[in-house]
Amino acid sequence: MKIEDTKYLSRVNSVADLRKLSIDELPLYCAELRQFIVDSVSSNPGHLGSSLGALEIAVAIHYVYDTPYDRLVWDVGHQAYAHKIITGRRDMFHTNRKRGGISGFPKRAESEFDAFGAGHSSVSVSAAVGMAAASKIKGDNRKVVAVIGDGALTGGLAFEGLNNAKDKDVLVVLNDNNMSIDPNVGALRDALTKLTTSRVYNKLKNRIWHFLGFCPPLRRVLQKFENGAKSFFLHQSNLFESLGFRYFGPIDGNDVKMLVRRLRDLRSIEGPKLLHTITVKGKGYPIAEEHQTEWHAPGKFNPLTGEKAPASDSLRYQEVFGYTLLELARSNDKIVGITPAMPTGCSLNILMEAMPHRAFDVGIAEGHAVTFAAGLSTEGIVPFCNIYSSFSQRSIDNIIHDVAVQGNEVVLCLDRAGLVGEDGATHHGAFDIALLRSIPNVVIAAPSSDLELRNVMFTASKGGYGGCFVIRYPRGGKFSKDVLSKPFEKLQIGKSVVVNEDKSSDVAILSVGATFNIASKAASVVGATHIDMRFVKPLDVELLDRVAQQYRVVVVVEDGVVGGGAGSAVRDYYSAQGIVIDVRSVGLPDSFVEHASVEDLWKMCGLSVDSIVEIAKR
Amino acid sequence: MKIEDTKYLSRVNSVADLRKLSIDELPLYCAELRQFIVDSVSSNPGHLGSSLGALEIAVAIHYVYDTPYDRLVWDVGHQAYAHKIITGRRDMFHTNRKRGGISGFPKRAESEFDAFGAGHSSVSVSAAVGMAAASKIKGDNRKVVAVIGDGALTGGLAFEGLNNAKDKDVLVVLNDNNMSIDPNVGALRDALTKLTTSRVYNKLKNRIWHFLGFCPPLRRVLQKFENGAKSFFLHQSNLFESLGFRYFGPIDGNDVKMLVRRLRDLRSIEGPKLLHTITVKGKGYPIAEEHQTEWHAPGKFNPLTGEKAPASDSLRYQEVFGYTLLELARSNDKIVGITPAMPTGCSLNILMEAMPHRAFDVGIAEGHAVTFAAGLSTEGIVPFCNIYSSFSQRSIDNIIHDVAVQGNEVVLCLDRAGLVGEDGATHHGAFDIALLRSIPNVVIAAPSSDLELRNVMFTASKGGYGGCFVIRYPRGGKFSKDVLSKPFEKLQIGKSVVVNEDKSSDVAILSVGATFNIASKAASVVGATHIDMRFVKPLDVELLDRVAQQYRVVVVVEDGVVGGGAGSAVRDYYSAQGIVIDVRSVGLPDSFVEHASVEDLWKMCGLSVDSIVEIAKR
Repeated sequence: MKIEDTKYLSRVNSVADLRKLSIDELPLYCAELRQFIVDSVSSNPGHLGSSLGALEIAVAIHYVYDTPYDRLVWDVGHQAYAHKIITGRRDMFHTNRKRGGISGFPKRAESEFDAFGAGHSSVSVSAAVGMAAASKIKGDNRKVVAVIGDGALTGGLAFEGLNNAKDKDVLVVLNDNNMSIDPNVGALRDALTKLTTSRVYNKLKNRIWHFLGFCPPLRRVLQKFENGAKSFFLHQSNLFESLGFRYFGPIDGNDVKMLVRRLRDLRSIEGPKLLHTITVKGKGYPIAEEHQTEWHAPGKFNPLTGEKAPASDSLRYQEVFGYTLLELARSNDKIVGITPAMPTGCSLNILMEAMPHRAFDVGIAEGHAVTFAAGLSTEGIVPFCNIYSSFSQRSIDNIIHDVAVQGNEVVLCLDRAGLVGEDGATHHGAFDIALLRSIPNVVIAAPSSDLELRNVMFTASKGGYGGCFVIRYPRGGKFSKDVLSKPFEKLQIGKSVVVNEDKSSDVAILSVGATFNIASKAASVVGATHIDMRFVKPLDVELLDRVAQQYRVVVVVEDGVVGGGAGSAVRDYYSAQGIVIDVRSVGLPDSFVEHASVEDLWKMCGLSVDSIVEIAKR
Repeated sequence: MKIEDTKYLSRVNSVADLRKLSIDELPLYCAELRQFIVDSVSSNPGHLGSSLGALEIAVAIHYVYDTPYDRLVWDVGHQAYAHKIITGRRDMFHTNRKRGGISGFPKRAESEFDAFGAGHSSVSVSAAVGMAAASKIKGDNRKVVAVIGDGALTGGLAFEGLNNAKDKDVLVVLNDNNMSIDPNVGALRDALTKLTTSRVYNKLKNRIWHFLGFCPPLRRVLQKFENGAKSFFLHQSNLFESLGFRYFGPIDGNDVKMLVRRLRDLRSIEGPKLLHTITVKGKGYPIAEEHQTEWHAPGKFNPLTGEKAPASDSLRYQEVFGYTLLELARSNDKIVGITPAMPTGCSLNILMEAMPHRAFDVGIAEGHAVTFAAGLSTEGIVPFCNIYSSFSQRSIDNIIHDVAVQGNEVVLCLDRAGLVGEDGATHHGAFDIALLRSIPNVVIAAPSSDLELRNVMFTASKGGYGGCFVIRYPRGGKFSKDVLSKPFEKLQIGKSVVVNEDKSSDVAILSVGATFNIASKAASVVGATHIDMRFVKPLDVELLDRVAQQYRVVVVVEDGVVGGGAGSAVRDYYSAQGIVIDVRSVGLPDSFVEHASVEDLWKMCGLSVDSIVEIAKR
């Protein structure tokens, strides 16, 4: 669509413009905005479903609240495209997630309207409570609104935030679409459904509420009475009320006029309050409404037909993980799979469909995922817990305290290790090696191929390592299905692989996981020996001793941060042995890497043949 | 007391013996057990209050459940002394927390009755849910009980566990004593109080419940009805019910006969259920009941009189932190303090008493503490967030995602850094440097004295570092009050201090924080230069360059893990500069350090003058 052909979208260049629209014009503006997002995302891929679902929420909040003076905090910012477009970034929206363009998530450095950054979920309430506390200290009477999905609500951090909202003037808008990326799970989900199915009751309540608008004390009486009455008649307890929130709703979160009216009411109510809105993920784009997981982030598509590029026939690391786990589970009835809300993303859905009782989606709850796995492990179960590398930062203490200290055996598969591309700084799996390698009783494997991933998983399934067996691998890959029929080989934990030996050289290049290819090419350019480390912990100390005798320079190439990473581990080992040798690192810098394509980012970070060669020859 | 003089304690050598007692004998056994714990802890210090409060719970569970076949998981194991004594460790109890003795927390390696280790809080539900899931997979019909305090319940992990208990056969016993170490806080606390104050109502319900014991279906009807009725009449929602738990109670958790009766009822009820018990921290030892925070872990005392060694007149790092923060807060009205449930332990209570509106106890919620601080920071507030080093492992993602990525300025004071002694492996602050130094936009300071702590805090309060300013310091110290009247000095971030320069030497010893003294002595023995690093990040690169020119050997001494620690950071720096030099580390090993006195542990880990000298001369 052309912006100049639109009636409302073209007129709204700022929140001030938005506020000039009449309430009756808002649905028309929303329709144009929706079409604009569909068109944009169809050619410049991003997160579609969440942003369509939360569109009216974004419009209504900016319409009613005095942003940016009032603060709007988005939880998991990929629902915030409408927000970005409303707040002056319409004409930049075609650069969304591109190198040098705007971020796919709210970002403080990008706009004064982005009150808080949010790539990871469940942070909004805590941040908003902080802002509300600040407003109280400064006495500046600023309103704070957090928008959180029902999926994000399962994260313990969100609960901690709710529990600390007492006396803070904060509105939480619950964007309840029954989904994380996959369907949402857990007891809380059931509770929300119960609240939602009491629609008739709530409608009645809402009408009385509106009618009583003239008289706040009467409203308070009603609120008190009706919560009790609801519990009585519907046999339900309300989580939010038990945490001291005043609960309103549920209302249709895709009805912008209704939202505006309710938000106007709520703006003047003090203290912590929650507005439960029911939205539809993918709202207004039928195929996205129907296939919500698939259209969470659909890639390029034809906006008229919904046609997408045909799915590739090859396997990525993700499918190799998924099929291999199923194969292992079939031969060992103690093996189970666990994912915090990413069954489709990490391919645990393969096990889940074949053996539903052996696969656990625990919701967005990375800490629980690991401690739950530890609990299973104490009973002789063999848990494969799959967490995206950057989200595993949420479970460091669980890995230390519930797995490693106790020697409970848990296989922790870190998907999306290394640079992830367009999702940017919050999503790169940059820190896992540095964070995990200092922990005792931890094994860290970084397979460099589909076959190696399979064999490492097989090896881990056999146990005997007494703690946490980490397997890190990147997103993507293009592998043949043949790999799935290759027999498993048990690897020796902590053994590296000499890929190509050049005894005449004085340089050895050690690669970690996905850096295999550039390291291999660089080795042939330099004329160096190439070793695939395969394990970052324990190190292959025999081999390292030999390397120290034969070579003058060791170059460690890794797709994680250099500071504290695999190269650092090699240096620590030599230091402990009293060996003084020149160990150089190629990897990510000590700064946050922004969004761009993975290819671009690798080059920008010096993960290239040229830069390895340069460092090897330095 | 002498065991042989007791009537019941001497007879109970195992859970089998306990189960031979009649229900009427249990209160008598409890009384002797209580006296035994008071006597033991009076001469061999440990955690008194929690273990006295949870004593009847421990007795009743072991009496009713078939432990160790049935699993009992303690949350924050310092409430589990009675459990240890009942389960065959009575005659070892005098070795509690001592080098080579039993641990002060449940520990899987120590006993088959210790189903899960728990030094950190809020893990029990997740672990128990894992065990219950395992039992379901294996079909072995094992019962699982978790005992969790109301303090631990504020941790998000506990919520994640509750949310995932659906269809799992697990009993959660809520040990509600209204306390963490300090009084418990937050909305959930209020909700529990509401549930508790409806005593008359609950008594009636309990009677009817007991009466209906013969007829489970009628009980189910009652349960359904009465929850609704309670909500109706008392205007309250029940968190546990909203998460799909069947809620029972509250009952007196120090009434062992009542507990046994209710547990017998509950044992046969399937699915997730919660028994709310009200206990008194310090129960049965009046002075401990009266001063619950002080008697949480009272040190040595006279069991007859409650007399303790007089409080020292000198300051520890903790008081230096507390008074300094108050002083800073008085001169800058933007400064606030935050603690996750440790106001007394970290001395934030000093600010809290003087300026209650400027100090926040957020309950056991380390993740929230940091994200809340980040929210405050976005509004120009200067938050000093104080977390024990080992508990800060819970907030790594918050430090990365909510502070460092966004450049929100948060001062993170890590108390109890380094080895903590008797609390053992779960409590040592061994990993903070290794975990945090790989994160961009992080400053890490390790002051080596009371004065330096003050000046580092002053420096941090001035801002301008664009991320997380970590200040790590150990427990203890013996400082004069005079330090509090010394004027502040603003330090240059990233500058080290040359303590003593010996230009004729070829060795430079770099110390981190509390290792100053042994490093200083070792330097004089070796005849080496001694540098106090003061900052681990950013490193003093000018000085390091000079060191590389003047010395052949660099020894870095630190009270954290060597792998990935401060020495590792120095090696990484030199490597990046293309400088090949012999950098050696003295610090903690790549294995978990058990419990013993701090003094012993330092020696055992090679943190001694001798071992520095040995490594320097190697």
